[in-house]
Amino acid sequence: MEVGFLGLGIMGKAISVNLLKNGFKVTVWNRTLSKCDELVAHGATVGETPAEVVKKCKITIGMLADPPAALSVVFDKSGVLEQICPGKGYIDMSTVDPETSTKISQAITSKGGHFLEAPVSGSKQPAETGQLVILSAGEKALYDEAIPALNVIGKKAFFLGQVGNGAKMKLIVNMIMGCMMNTFSEGLVLAEKSGLDPRTLLDALELGAIANPMFKGKGPAMLQSTYTPAFPLKHQQKDLRLALALGDENAVSMPIAAAANEAFKKARSLGLGDHDFSAVYEAVKNPK
Amino acid sequence: MEVGFLGLGIMGKAISVNLLKNGFKVTVWNRTLSKCDELVAHGATVGETPAEVVKKCKITIGMLADPPAALSVVFDKSGVLEQICPGKGYIDMSTVDPETSTKISQAITSKGGHFLEAPVSGSKQPAETGQLVILSAGEKALYDEAIPALNVIGKKAFFLGQVGNGAKMKLIVNMIMGCMMNTFSEGLVLAEKSGLDPRTLLDALELGAIANPMFKGKGPAMLQSTYTPAFPLKHQQKDLRLALALGDENAVSMPIAAAANEAFKKARSLGLGDHDFSAVYEAVKNPK
Amino acid sequence: MEVGFLGLGIMGKAISVNLLKNGFKVTVWNRTLSKCDELVAHGATVGETPAEVVKKCKITIGMLADPPAALSVVFDKSGVLEQICPGKGYIDMSTVDPETSTKISQAITSKGGHFLEAPVSGSKQPAETGQLVILSAGEKALYDEAIPALNVIGKKAFFLGQVGNGAKMKLIVNMIMGCMMNTFSEGLVLAEKSGLDPRTLLDALELGAIANPMFKGKGPAMLQSTYTPAFPLKHQQKDLRLALALGDENAVSMPIAAAANEAFKKARSLGLGDHDFSAVYEAVKNPK
Amino acid sequence: MEVGFLGLGIMGKAISVNLLKNGFKVTVWNRTLSKCDELVAHGATVGETPAEVVKKCKITIGMLADPPAALSVVFDKSGVLEQICPGKGYIDMSTVDPETSTKISQAITSKGGHFLEAPVSGSKQPAETGQLVILSAGEKALYDEAIPALNVIGKKAFFLGQVGNGAKMKLIVNMIMGCMMNTFSEGLVLAEKSGLDPRTLLDALELGAIANPMFKGKGPAMLQSTYTPAFPLKHQQKDLRLALALGDENAVSMPIAAAANEAFKKARSLGLGDHDFSAVYEAVKNPK
Repeated sequence: MEVGFLGLGIMGKAISVNLLKNGFKVTVWNRTLSKCDELVAHGATVGETPAEVVKKCKITIGMLADPPAALSVVFDKSGVLEQICPGKGYIDMSTVDPETSTKISQAITSKGGHFLEAPVSGSKQPAETGQLVILSAGEKALYDEAIPALNVIGKKAFFLGQVGNGAKMKLIVNMIMGCMMNTFSEGLVLAEKSGLDPRTLLDALELGAIANPMFKGKGPAMLQSTYTPAFPLKHQQKDLRLALALGDENAVSMPIAAAANEAFKKARSLGLGDHDFSAVYEAVKNPK
Repeated sequence: MEVGFLGLGIMGKAISVNLLKNGFKVTVWNRTLSKCDELVAHGATVGETPAEVVKKCKITIGMLADPPAALSVVFDKSGVLEQICPGKGYIDMSTVDPETSTKISQAITSKGGHFLEAPVSGSKQPAETGQLVILSAGEKALYDEAIPALNVIGKKAFFLGQVGNGAKMKLIVNMIMGCMMNTFSEGLVLAEKSGLDPRTLLDALELGAIANPMFKGKGPAMLQSTYTPAFPLKHQQKDLRLALALGDENAVSMPIAAAANEAFKKARSLGLGDHDFSAVYEAVKNPK
Repeated sequence: MEVGFLGLGIMGKAISVNLLKNGFKVTVWNRTLSKCDELVAHGATVGETPAEVVKKCKITIGMLADPPAALSVVFDKSGVLEQICPGKGYIDMSTVDPETSTKISQAITSKGGHFLEAPVSGSKQPAETGQLVILSAGEKALYDEAIPALNVIGKKAFFLGQVGNGAKMKLIVNMIMGCMMNTFSEGLVLAEKSGLDPRTLLDALELGAIANPMFKGKGPAMLQSTYTPAFPLKHQQKDLRLALALGDENAVSMPIAAAANEAFKKARSLGLGDHDFSAVYEAVKNPK
Repeated sequence: MEVGFLGLGIMGKAISVNLLKNGFKVTVWNRTLSKCDELVAHGATVGETPAEVVKKCKITIGMLADPPAALSVVFDKSGVLEQICPGKGYIDMSTVDPETSTKISQAITSKGGHFLEAPVSGSKQPAETGQLVILSAGEKALYDEAIPALNVIGKKAFFLGQVGNGAKMKLIVNMIMGCMMNTFSEGLVLAEKSGLDPRTLLDALELGAIANPMFKGKGPAMLQSTYTPAFPLKHQQKDLRLALALGDENAVSMPIAAAANEAFKKARSLGLGDHDFSAVYEAVKNPK
């Protein structure tokens, strides 16, 4: 099976490599084209523009950094729209707000193309090993057609109905994740400042009802102030912002999410936006 | 081995039964003595007062609801203090603030008795099955002596050094737990209000990096508004309050914990204090 | 001097009447045209569409409810844009976000028209008595030309430089106002619930360093649950949202504003959106 | 009229000098006795201990920094309690929690003495000029007897009923004040970071419905990072903590106060505790 792939950031690169390793033919494109070289080493072909990739492939997947990037790859000159047509599908795996997703969907379908939004839950490592959770929504036929690829990319691919639902579900999962990371950070700082060994806190958490892979995976690195970006902090903050906007629309009051968003903003203002989102720990500790 | 046990609330009862099932002789006491009947059915002996229990047993364990109750069982007439003496140990498993624990410790040791604070992490079910996590601190010799009982009560018994450290660690774990429950509730409400099936959110969470036994265990019941108290909401709020007080002492700013505390207070003010702490979900939903 | 006036909500109506009373000729328009009748009684002329008003008047003022309404009156069919031209000016007094303001500005100036954004601080009564504070920005020449009208509308008209600055200043003032109303409400509820007479709190506040017209003016009505809308709660919440968005853009962490926004959202979800913004007091009290 | 005065901090000194200037005979005491020298220069007599002051004066006023200091001056050796007796009154003007106040009241009255709690609203300058607001509660007869002094100290002396009510009212006023200072700081930072002149924000605020002496008085100094302590930040934070505790007792959810408390804690952790409470502005700005 042949697929196109637009956007080779942390996630996009990992997913593409994984597809290649699983026997897919992949044509890749990235705004900075030089980033494609590593993929070529894994067997990928390069497309010069999004339009060229779509022209070549029946199904093209996009994984862009944020709503403006997701829109730009579709609507700009030589973008997806120029070549999308009946028989071709575009799957947008970017984490965007429901409005952005709907806008892209309408443009694609107005050209007769098929659209699926399919944001994923999981960061770098699950992307490399095909263990993502895929929250797709849109055209069921395209979902069915793409299943072989989706099954390689993720361990589970939900189909959630109409376009926008995937985006919403993703934002909610990430909102909970950001809040958990923030409370985890507060707990670690409180342990340290009150004379306890924060490593013992990690051990105690690991044994209880709130044990989870994120605490276990990120905790030890955080205590060493290591924040190699698996999921950049600025994206976590963006997702909190978008989840809060979704809450605003539906008149849902979410004080925890709002407080977490402000903490991640504080971290961003301290220059931590490109670090892993677990670097919010540095903002919770007293910045010197 | 023979142990005394003071306080037969949800947790105390479960632990006592578990000790009896594992071959310990247990002498129990409870403020409302009739609550001892069920324990007698499992083979326990009854003491009329805390003092009587301590007189009879080398090691007595207390599991009381809150700091005032924990103090009262020790300092009141016919309390632990009247019979504690060299050679006897008192292990307080209540979740209290470090000050309360220190006060009890000083009183016990001034009489020559041995003291261990040993709050536990885990609620009703882990208590019944001996799967608690024990966060003990105080006299190492008493810890060593009590190990056979501690090993039945919990799957792991930490020894954390000086009195107060167990209380602190417990508060921090519970603070994180309360915040997680609160963000989980916000996420479920946001899912519902924005047109998603909250059960799908449970499924998606279960597959990702923040999957944890609490979300899995409590989520389905919450969606049915079932809040059988494993850990009463008013105790969760008390623990948040005490953790915030610990933060105040150490000048640790904890906006997430503070926001969560206010949400649990709101839930308390709605009359949910005696329900399971997961009932904070009801306060996050729009109260009718 | 003759001016056009678009939008006859609470504020627009009060300002128009004030202009008429001060000898201005005013041509009014409102989406629901019947709302113009009262103005006609005060001597106004009616325009059938925004375009018609602009055609007739050298300077037209708009006072719309929110960004979509402010955009619609300019860009829709028979909107301001159709008749704006060199020599004509449009002054937008709506409270909108800087982006909306900039969008309108660009459209107007691209047609050769002159633009001033001029959001006001103050609600119904100051509008009726010409005591508003005007936060204008944009074309200085239009500001100078409109001074006779601005001096009737407000007690002070700031000129703040480039378009967007008026909108920003307004949002910040309203953000502070919303937070103050929220803390005021928390204080009143705390007084009541802890056995004090909240009226005495009003008296004590009135005598101290934080005495202000809003507490004095709104407090007594709030204690009687009277919320005649001078500034609708949903608009207060919108302004908090927009101020937070401005903070997001500039990486300014604002936990108080974020908490207040969630409280106003809660109030909105309780159906209080069309009441005066002081009705947040009802959401702080335990909703029944 | 002769009065005793215990505690010569910022407030105590200003009040004592004011009493002396108004013709009162004042016997002063301070933990660091050398601080009495300046008062002696104004005509005061010095007492070696609180007990000595009470022995000498029919009415003694205390103005201590916090609950422990307020308790210590009464209960310690050579404290107020040793000499208080029928016919003598003690007026505690410290800002303390209701419990502390009640404890002192019970001790005083058990010796036959008269007690009035009388915390004040207002800081250094109003103290110097007799413009404080006095929130008294306790024994009405003592209030009546002390009126000549109270009228010199404040512009208004409320009598609020039973002991505890003065403390509560004071905490609520200060809670609102702290939240207002915090939102004011957020507004100033947002103005600066989004390209506006924060001095213009001060001007705009001054003209609107939320204009108040605190914004006007503190604003310009804050913009110059000048924080001469009129009301130390650590005391503002303590009052927020105590107000939140009062809310906890009465199940009042106060998210704004909780968020403000965390901001003041952050400021405290940055070493700003002894600066004026307006220094919370430094914590809202990005600490470098």
